[in-house]
Amino acid sequence: MLSERGHTLAGMPHSSAASGAPRWSYLGPEGTFTEAALLTLPEAARAEALPMASVPAALDAVRRGEADAAVVPLENSVEGSVSVTIDELATGEPLVIEREILLPISFALLVRPGTTMADIKTVSSHAHAQPQVRRWLGANLPDAEWFSSASNADAARLVQEGRYDAALAGEFAAERYGLVPLVAEIHDVEGAVTRFVQVRRPAPVSPPTGADRTSVVAFIVDDHAGALLEILQEFAVRGVNLDHIQSRPTGDGLGHYFFAIEAEGHIADARVGEALMGLRRVCAGVRFLGSYPRADGARPQVRRGTSDAEFDDAARWLDRARRGES
Amino acid sequence: MLSERGHTLAGMPHSSAASGAPRWSYLGPEGTFTEAALLTLPEAARAEALPMASVPAALDAVRRGEADAAVVPLENSVEGSVSVTIDELATGEPLVIEREILLPISFALLVRPGTTMADIKTVSSHAHAQPQVRRWLGANLPDAEWFSSASNADAARLVQEGRYDAALAGEFAAERYGLVPLVAEIHDVEGAVTRFVQVRRPAPVSPPTGADRTSVVAFIVDDHAGALLEILQEFAVRGVNLDHIQSRPTGDGLGHYFFAIEAEGHIADARVGEALMGLRRVCAGVRFLGSYPRADGARPQVRRGTSDAEFDDAARWLDRARRGES
Amino acid sequence: MLSERGHTLAGMPHSSAASGAPRWSYLGPEGTFTEAALLTLPEAARAEALPMASVPAALDAVRRGEADAAVVPLENSVEGSVSVTIDELATGEPLVIEREILLPISFALLVRPGTTMADIKTVSSHAHAQPQVRRWLGANLPDAEWFSSASNADAARLVQEGRYDAALAGEFAAERYGLVPLVAEIHDVEGAVTRFVQVRRPAPVSPPTGADRTSVVAFIVDDHAGALLEILQEFAVRGVNLDHIQSRPTGDGLGHYFFAIEAEGHIADARVGEALMGLRRVCAGVRFLGSYPRADGARPQVRRGTSDAEFDDAARWLDRARRGES
Amino acid sequence: MLSERGHTLAGMPHSSAASGAPRWSYLGPEGTFTEAALLTLPEAARAEALPMASVPAALDAVRRGEADAAVVPLENSVEGSVSVTIDELATGEPLVIEREILLPISFALLVRPGTTMADIKTVSSHAHAQPQVRRWLGANLPDAEWFSSASNADAARLVQEGRYDAALAGEFAAERYGLVPLVAEIHDVEGAVTRFVQVRRPAPVSPPTGADRTSVVAFIVDDHAGALLEILQEFAVRGVNLDHIQSRPTGDGLGHYFFAIEAEGHIADARVGEALMGLRRVCAGVRFLGSYPRADGARPQVRRGTSDAEFDDAARWLDRARRGES
Repeated sequence: MLSERGHTLAGMPHSSAASGAPRWSYLGPEGTFTEAALLTLPEAARAEALPMASVPAALDAVRRGEADAAVVPLENSVEGSVSVTIDELATGEPLVIEREILLPISFALLVRPGTTMADIKTVSSHAHAQPQVRRWLGANLPDAEWFSSASNADAARLVQEGRYDAALAGEFAAERYGLVPLVAEIHDVEGAVTRFVQVRRPAPVSPPTGADRTSVVAFIVDDHAGALLEILQEFAVRGVNLDHIQSRPTGDGLGHYFFAIEAEGHIADARVGEALMGLRRVCAGVRFLGSYPRADGARPQVRRGTSDAEFDDAARWLDRARRGES
Repeated sequence: MLSERGHTLAGMPHSSAASGAPRWSYLGPEGTFTEAALLTLPEAARAEALPMASVPAALDAVRRGEADAAVVPLENSVEGSVSVTIDELATGEPLVIEREILLPISFALLVRPGTTMADIKTVSSHAHAQPQVRRWLGANLPDAEWFSSASNADAARLVQEGRYDAALAGEFAAERYGLVPLVAEIHDVEGAVTRFVQVRRPAPVSPPTGADRTSVVAFIVDDHAGALLEILQEFAVRGVNLDHIQSRPTGDGLGHYFFAIEAEGHIADARVGEALMGLRRVCAGVRFLGSYPRADGARPQVRRGTSDAEFDDAARWLDRARRGES
Repeated sequence: MLSERGHTLAGMPHSSAASGAPRWSYLGPEGTFTEAALLTLPEAARAEALPMASVPAALDAVRRGEADAAVVPLENSVEGSVSVTIDELATGEPLVIEREILLPISFALLVRPGTTMADIKTVSSHAHAQPQVRRWLGANLPDAEWFSSASNADAARLVQEGRYDAALAGEFAAERYGLVPLVAEIHDVEGAVTRFVQVRRPAPVSPPTGADRTSVVAFIVDDHAGALLEILQEFAVRGVNLDHIQSRPTGDGLGHYFFAIEAEGHIADARVGEALMGLRRVCAGVRFLGSYPRADGARPQVRRGTSDAEFDDAARWLDRARRGES
Repeated sequence: MLSERGHTLAGMPHSSAASGAPRWSYLGPEGTFTEAALLTLPEAARAEALPMASVPAALDAVRRGEADAAVVPLENSVEGSVSVTIDELATGEPLVIEREILLPISFALLVRPGTTMADIKTVSSHAHAQPQVRRWLGANLPDAEWFSSASNADAARLVQEGRYDAALAGEFAAERYGLVPLVAEIHDVEGAVTRFVQVRRPAPVSPPTGADRTSVVAFIVDDHAGALLEILQEFAVRGVNLDHIQSRPTGDGLGHYFFAIEAEGHIADARVGEALMGLRRVCAGVRFLGSYPRADGARPQVRRGTSDAEFDDAARWLDRARRGES
């Protein structure tokens, strides 16, 4: 039987899925922050959660129909894989984001029952967690040696197995691996949050809520200087603010990029639609990754001249002008 | 009876218009470069030409239905009135440009028969003509005194009346005023050309020829810093080149402007239409002044991503994305 | 002896200049709004005013040293010549603006003593005045015929000579031409103002007052699409607002332009200096026309990051970074 | 004694550094692609290489003076840590990049001597390597289970320890861990390359080579919409092309970013210097990360108006204009 950590590349994890429950794959193993994010969703109680060994594996499960949706980290994750999520959504078989989930991040120092601070000589966590806890470690365990693990949950497993003395992971991972939290709420930075997304196979976009976000990836025409500026101007001229933009290599060698873009608003908004059409025209390719409600509920400030009503008015004016009725 | 120079502000010039002939008003009096421009049109042979005392008078004749069209100078005229044409088209009762006419400008020194160079003590022309002939005057009539007249044709009339010894005007004005050209082809600058336009009451725009120009005026939102940059970006982002832009006071005090804009392309072009809608949205007001064939026949260079086909493709792509078929 | 209206192109008007008094040429003849603007200056009492037949003549008097300064209309003049002023400053022997003067414009209906409204069959003014009085004329003298003159003052002279019944000119022109104002304060638009400038031969720029304006002309590289946008961005990126921009033909054929630009601030301001250097680099040529106090006293809003102190700080930072001290 | 994989957070690895040899820390353990990159440097033969457990540890060794320089992955690494490198350089105690190294990436399937393809049930590598080998795995080891490790070298070590049957890592890692390459040159994508950088404590920048790159990080003013566009325009208006730009969270909560920017050219170039000063003025903070030779030797295309000579010319012109000598 396969453990929850493993994943056969040509197949899927064994499971005893009840026929009616939604099946959600996620970046495992059990005890990751991704699982914690998934568990915050209202439907999680009746969903079957399928831990996968990697983000691509979680997404492929959806692509192959073995899962209905996948929950994966997208931004600022302490468990890594952000870039791999973007790359997978940008270039793999199309999937779309239907929801985002914000999860506050703090760590617990997990140990086998009975371990004390003085006993701890080795500590492990995912490499991405280390910057978030290094000050705490320097102050509280200055002589302990730190080792990176494949995930924070994996670090907990290795503590369970006796390889390391302590793991830095989510407190929720303790029970799964038979550990106890010796210290909780460890984080060098206040308010650390990771953004996760739930993705599914393409389907009609759900209607705007008024506080939405739109994700796309844009592949630039090779060797076209100023491509990013051109892309930003397509948004700026229609008053669409960008929340986030990131360049990523296309895999065709250094210097060839695509841009992962998160914009305020919904593809059904006139200004967003026109900006995306502009993007489509100036780029070598554009992939729409979804319009979905923002977890923070922030409503965009609509700049003068960019509301749907103003787009409609302008379209009617153009029509009149073309007919000589101006 | 009214002379061709005069114009009753409440009425129109008397004329004996044959019922079927088109009636064209123009900036008179007879003998102006505007009349010469009008006479280059194929239909001029059968049109009735109505000289008016000013550009507003010529345009008002069309507005009142007393003329079918008006020919007036628009750009770089040696007879002035360019700004007044723009201001009238921008703010008076709407008219649209249906045609442009380019006329090479050169002057003749018109005198009464028998006058020689040595006899010339006084020379007159419109003030706008003076910069174009001052070098020639300095070299050939260094001791003559120059006086400005209301138009070059008016200068010719004043020579006819004996007030001045010579006029600088179009050679074609000589016969009308009983003068002879003592010197022809006078111009300090090679290749001087004036652009005239024929305007009419609003009617459906004629179809694109592929080498078209579009004229609009845009009234900016008061005290909005960066308004011009914003306007230019609406065009630039859709790849619409501008041929000409000029700021003009709105008449509401210094510092309040509108912009007269001439763009490459036709309002029926997708890129031009979208740019004009953008302009409409960010400006306090936009008036469409017409799309019409360029007299120079220059075809615009269509930038990658801005052809009608690419706009259509992007619209279909957006539609698919909204339906979840991307 | 030459009249004040005339001007020998190779020479200058005769005058009895007291040796110590400043000599100021201006767009004449006597009785123009330009003269009225000149007379508002504190030093006007002791200056010798030299009326010239045209803007070029007024400027050439300064170039040749026959006048110390010239007063000419620059913007929205009712007496025309704005374009000719810009063209002359852009392309003639260099001169710089040292001062601007705002003059409210209103017209008086000037007649020979004894003339009544019922007597008026003909009215004259400069063509540029007509749009500003046409509504008044339509309402008050609907049957009078209007004729254009070389200037409003010239219209007054022609009334004096008996050619026309009434002139529309500045009320101050009445006495000079032996006329009386039958109606005063005529203007279709409230608050009409003309901007005049005093220009001199190049000299070190006077220091900033904090409420300054800078004028330049920029000649673009031929056939360089997007040149205007490029020019505007040089200003925008340094937070320099533009008050006014106008394209003007270079005289080398239609489609070749230069831009006359008026910017907020003073050439001694770091942001203005850097913007002008940028302009110099991207244009075929730039001519500095002066930094001088704004007549309206408006102080520019200095955008974050564009004060002299912030430029200084950035320069020191760059220096440190280059030396490896960042 | 500490293994090469471990690192005491309060101390440094034990080593037997010869007194004169340069000491270079790097992202270990031994057998990583980072070590392979380091070994391509000419001075590597006489340098002492210090493997560190993480990028922060490698950089801290330099900060504390325990190493003279560090070699770490910066872009597109298969071993992760790119973001952590950027974050560390952006926010830790200042370091600067003095050199970049490009290393072609291909994987070998490393096994214990005697293992055959048929024996392989489990495979491990770093999570970032998985996307680069998944197609190969699907085709060649469709039934093997894949597990993520803390690094590819760590995967090799775990094969040595018998935990997994095979590791995907650099072929050079085989010898270190007593393994043999069963298959070499594995990569789904042709031409995969990772960019590494060598960093040191701040020191005067070495002179331009003509084919240089400049790295900076820019912290934007919070909640300032359009900040990225503003940043890009600072570069664009001076003709400085960007090679790469990436937004990164500041750690102060989602939605607060800094930008890591790589630009063509050298801080000693006038256009780059002016752009950086502009960045400094519009941003909340800018950190210079170094100007250094490009490994690909590509020389930037210098746009008209942006050469050092043109900057010098413009500075002299401005000086003349301010002195009234224009």
